[in-house]
Amino acid sequence: MNLIGRKHWAIAEGYIPPYGHGPAPQMISHEAVCILNASDAEAHVEIMVFYEERDPVGPYRFTIAPRRTRHLRFNNFEDPEKIPHDTSFSSVISSDVPIVVQHTRLDSRQADNALLSTIAFPGND
Amino acid sequence: MNLIGRKHWAIAEGYIPPYGHGPAPQMISHEAVCILNASDAEAHVEIMVFYEERDPVGPYRFTIAPRRTRHLRFNNFEDPEKIPHDTSFSSVISSDVPIVVQHTRLDSRQADNALLSTIAFPGND
Amino acid sequence: MNLIGRKHWAIAEGYIPPYGHGPAPQMISHEAVCILNASDAEAHVEIMVFYEERDPVGPYRFTIAPRRTRHLRFNNFEDPEKIPHDTSFSSVISSDVPIVVQHTRLDSRQADNALLSTIAFPGND
Amino acid sequence: MNLIGRKHWAIAEGYIPPYGHGPAPQMISHEAVCILNASDAEAHVEIMVFYEERDPVGPYRFTIAPRRTRHLRFNNFEDPEKIPHDTSFSSVISSDVPIVVQHTRLDSRQADNALLSTIAFPGND
Repeated sequence: MNLIGRKHWAIAEGYIPPYGHGPAPQMISHEAVCILNASDAEAHVEIMVFYEERDPVGPYRFTIAPRRTRHLRFNNFEDPEKIPHDTSFSSVISSDVPIVVQHTRLDSRQADNALLSTIAFPGND
Repeated sequence: MNLIGRKHWAIAEGYIPPYGHGPAPQMISHEAVCILNASDAEAHVEIMVFYEERDPVGPYRFTIAPRRTRHLRFNNFEDPEKIPHDTSFSSVISSDVPIVVQHTRLDSRQADNALLSTIAFPGND
Repeated sequence: MNLIGRKHWAIAEGYIPPYGHGPAPQMISHEAVCILNASDAEAHVEIMVFYEERDPVGPYRFTIAPRRTRHLRFNNFEDPEKIPHDTSFSSVISSDVPIVVQHTRLDSRQADNALLSTIAFPGND
Repeated sequence: MNLIGRKHWAIAEGYIPPYGHGPAPQMISHEAVCILNASDAEAHVEIMVFYEERDPVGPYRFTIAPRRTRHLRFNNFEDPEKIPHDTSFSSVISSDVPIVVQHTRLDSRQADNALLSTIAFPGND
C-alpha cells in the first residue's frame, strides 16, 4: 500500500454555523476535518486552532489507528475548550506519521443545506 | 498532448448520503470520483476504501481507456462489496499510468441539492 | 508583480446541467473555467475536452491579454463543436505563459442553486 | 509551531453576487479570502485584483498579527476602490511572511444559500 500523505496541514477557513435545520446528527450544521491514516502505524494528531482576536488554542489531540479514517467535527472539540460558534478560525494539523486532510462544511442554516470541501494545504514536512 | 497526472491519489472525505430527492440517475445523492486518463496507454486503476472502525476494503478495479475520462460513483461499487450508506470513509486511488482525480458529491437529501468538489491529494509517485 | 502560475492544468470533473432556474445569464446552470493571466505577455490558451466514450475534442482556443482574467463557460464553447449537456467530461488546459486555473459550477436545476469550485490540478511544466 | 505557508497565492475565480437573502452580516452574499498567519511575525499582505476588461487594481493592504487568522470579504475592500458586484475578477495575494490562503463564497441570491471553497493556488516563493 502506498504511503501517501504529509505530516503538516493547514485549513485557513473555519466557521461553525450557529444553527441549523433537519434531523441530528447528519443535518446539524458542522465544520469537519477528515483525516486518512493510510499508514501501518498509529497517527498521533495535534490540531491548533487560530482566531482573529486572541491567541491560538490547543493542541486538540486525536489518535487514528493504522489504515483508518476519522471524520472529526470541530463542533465536538472539547479539550482544552469548546470552539465558539459564529466565529472565524483557522487550523493547523500535525501528525507523527503522514496523513491526508480534507476540510468539509455542511451548512443547514436555511431550509436546504449547502456544502463546501477542499483538500487542506500540505506543508513541506 | 501533455502527459499530466500522478499515479497515486487520496480523498480523505467520503460519505454517501442515505437518501435523496429528484429524478434518477442525475439527482440521486451520490459520491463520485472523476478520473482523467490523458495518456496514450490504458490505465489500470485500483481504489482502496478506508473506514473508521474496520480494515480497508478493496481493491476495486477499473480500466480507463487511453484519452478517456470516467466519472465513477462510489454508490455503484460492487466488487469486492457494496460501500455502506451513511458511513464515513476515505479512499486511495492508484494507477499504472498518470491520471488526474477529482472528488465530487451531490447531496439531494433536502429539497434542493448541494454540491462539493475538490481535486484529490496527489502522491509523490 | 509575481509571475504566478503554470502552463498545464487539468480538471477531471466536467458536467453541464441540462436545465436551470432563474434569470439569465447569471442563474443559468453553467460549468466554468476561470483563468488568470498575471503575466505581462498575452496568453494563448488551448483546451482539450475528454469524454467517456469517444476521442477528445479540441483544441478550443482562447487569448487572454496581459494582466487580465477570463471566466469562460464550457456552455459557450463553439469551435470546433458545442459540448453536449448532461454528459461527463474532463479538460486539459495548456498555455504558452504561466496561468492559474480554477473550476466552478453553478447548478440551478432545482429551486435553489448549488455551487462547487476547486483550483485545477497543475502540471509540472 | 510549524511554519506552514507560502508568500504568494492566486485565486482565479472571483465574483460578488449582486444581492442576497437573509439576516446581515452572516447571510449577505459574499466572496471571502481567509488568511492564516501561523508565524511569529506580523504579516504585511498585499492583494491585487485582476479584471476581464481593465488593468488590475491594488494593492489592497492588510496586516495580520502573529498567530492570527483574518477572514476578509472582498465586498468590504475600500482602498484604493470598491470591487464592483456582478463582475468577474481574480486575485493575487502576496505577503512578507508565509501565510495560508483559502477562497470561500456564500451565495444567498436564492432562498437557500450555496457555498464553495478551495485552498488557493500557492506560488513557488
